[in-house]
Amino acid sequence: MEERKAFGWAARDTSGFLSPFSFNLRKMGSEDVVLKVLYCGVDHTDLHQMRNEIHSTNYPLVPGHEVVGEVVELGSEVKKFRVGDIVGVGCIVGSCGECLYCQSNMEQYCPKTIFTMNDTYKDGSLTRGGFSSAMVVHQRFVVRIPEKLAPEQAAPLLCAGVTAYSPLKQFMGSDRVVRGGILGLGGVGHLGVIIAKAMGHHVTVISSSNKKREEALEILGADAFIVGSNEAEMEGAASSLDYILDTVPALHPLHSYLSLLKVDGKLIIVAAVPQPLQFDAVDIILGKRSISGSFIGSMEETQEILEFWADKDLTTMIEMVKLDYANKAFERMEKNDVRFRFVLDVAGSNLE
Amino acid sequence: MEERKAFGWAARDTSGFLSPFSFNLRKMGSEDVVLKVLYCGVDHTDLHQMRNEIHSTNYPLVPGHEVVGEVVELGSEVKKFRVGDIVGVGCIVGSCGECLYCQSNMEQYCPKTIFTMNDTYKDGSLTRGGFSSAMVVHQRFVVRIPEKLAPEQAAPLLCAGVTAYSPLKQFMGSDRVVRGGILGLGGVGHLGVIIAKAMGHHVTVISSSNKKREEALEILGADAFIVGSNEAEMEGAASSLDYILDTVPALHPLHSYLSLLKVDGKLIIVAAVPQPLQFDAVDIILGKRSISGSFIGSMEETQEILEFWADKDLTTMIEMVKLDYANKAFERMEKNDVRFRFVLDVAGSNLE
Repeated sequence: MEERKAFGWAARDTSGFLSPFSFNLRKMGSEDVVLKVLYCGVDHTDLHQMRNEIHSTNYPLVPGHEVVGEVVELGSEVKKFRVGDIVGVGCIVGSCGECLYCQSNMEQYCPKTIFTMNDTYKDGSLTRGGFSSAMVVHQRFVVRIPEKLAPEQAAPLLCAGVTAYSPLKQFMGSDRVVRGGILGLGGVGHLGVIIAKAMGHHVTVISSSNKKREEALEILGADAFIVGSNEAEMEGAASSLDYILDTVPALHPLHSYLSLLKVDGKLIIVAAVPQPLQFDAVDIILGKRSISGSFIGSMEETQEILEFWADKDLTTMIEMVKLDYANKAFERMEKNDVRFRFVLDVAGSNLE
Repeated sequence: MEERKAFGWAARDTSGFLSPFSFNLRKMGSEDVVLKVLYCGVDHTDLHQMRNEIHSTNYPLVPGHEVVGEVVELGSEVKKFRVGDIVGVGCIVGSCGECLYCQSNMEQYCPKTIFTMNDTYKDGSLTRGGFSSAMVVHQRFVVRIPEKLAPEQAAPLLCAGVTAYSPLKQFMGSDRVVRGGILGLGGVGHLGVIIAKAMGHHVTVISSSNKKREEALEILGADAFIVGSNEAEMEGAASSLDYILDTVPALHPLHSYLSLLKVDGKLIIVAAVPQPLQFDAVDIILGKRSISGSFIGSMEETQEILEFWADKDLTTMIEMVKLDYANKAFERMEKNDVRFRFVLDVAGSNLE
């Protein structure tokens, strides 16, 4: 079988600096889809992997796990897609297919998940992400981008969006007004606000400063805004929330946020934090509260959030740049200087 | 109205040492029940209050919040009980009666709960517990001891028992075998094992040493026993449990216990711990796990556990002593030298 060549940008060492890199795609199997990458979201996890901050990075590393592409070739057994379809790939490109989780649409919790980048595929090849001209992906891990949705709009939904959507789904369709909090207003947080509002929730943004107050209230449509360090604001909102979606990827004290929850309220953590988190047992005992975790979402939920976005005419707030701006984009993302997500125009970039 | 005199044992200062003490009961209202105390359980919370370790203790403090008594007088509007009934009183003797929680059988989460000891009643009097000849209690906070149940057997169910029962109820009636863990084998833990077994669960006891292995497996009927510090045993049980009921009232690292939970598994904390508890965000994110709290149980659940105990012919493991042994009982309880709960034979003690 012919080898397919791809042109991408890769990190070469722990500096994480990206530069052009060409490589061969893995061989296509009967259930694989070959896609030409159009757009790719830019996320904190990319940066952590580029700098070898999570687990041993295999350099050169091609990042990117919010990938929108066009189907250009199909394996013989792929019936679900046709050439020309606009499709998406998220954080995962493989799992065992046989365990309880794979059998019940929770494949992200399969102990043998294969990540879209910096992982080893079943054939022994390294997985490489969407900062690249093309990818080969098993059809199970490919979703369809609804026609109504602009492809670049879909990119951030494939990781950040479904990460917020999956845990918030449990609060959909309530017969009373659900009061939610979104802690942190980055890539996941801003989508969390949009999703929660679209679900009809009363949404309070909890932020570390007043910097994003106007954006939260006027652009994203949040109902309230609290600064976590402002004791008066925090006390005013005590015991008022059904849930808090905690998107903060750095150490933060849970005690004061737990106090915002009603009885039976849920703090849902979706961002890895390098240091251990702390709480007081009485904070959760006396209010029957819980602290839970949630990891991205299933492929089914990834498809759902795309349909949800299209059905409700929602808008992802993105800043589009070319691949030669990627190093700068990461620099700005680290300084929280983006409203709210960079998306790379991969097909429009000079790759070779 | 005449004043009713009571004779009890009280702590006088932060030493927590108990000695005889007589006082007047609060005046009986139309919805109150006067009961002659028969038996009272001995719990860690008593000791913490006696030593002023929780919040300002008003001395003299009469402890006791697992009270079994006989109804001796009734307010004019009490229809639920008759003189001679054997009844129980737990941790709470009052709440606002009007809030969402009071209206939905969750009065233990009412912000205005009045505790059975070391609290102030609506009429301004101090609340005094069951280490005493008599009590006056509003009928809402009195439960009926089923005839089939020996009264002294009921005492530990009124706080320790319902504390385990309330969070375990959610796992009742599953159509598959639920695999539960009980962390710590004291007053609450031993009842947790009995309850979980009676619910049909596969029960693993997780303890700090091998000391209680035989009791757990052969006397309480647990299915498995693990020592938390034994890495091989812990690894052998990794990702195997649907829940862990965490009854340990001292600092303990959650990381290793969380690893025992399946995806979507729940660590349920019911014991206050003076120091903050720690966990790693990835422990809960990657396994969709949760850490939740639960506070005793409602009055409805307190009645339920009593019926459950009677229906299933269960046996509380207690050691009965008289009030003049109470100081010694606390001393032994602190050293974990009781299988598994002291119950005071109050009516059989020399009180005056």
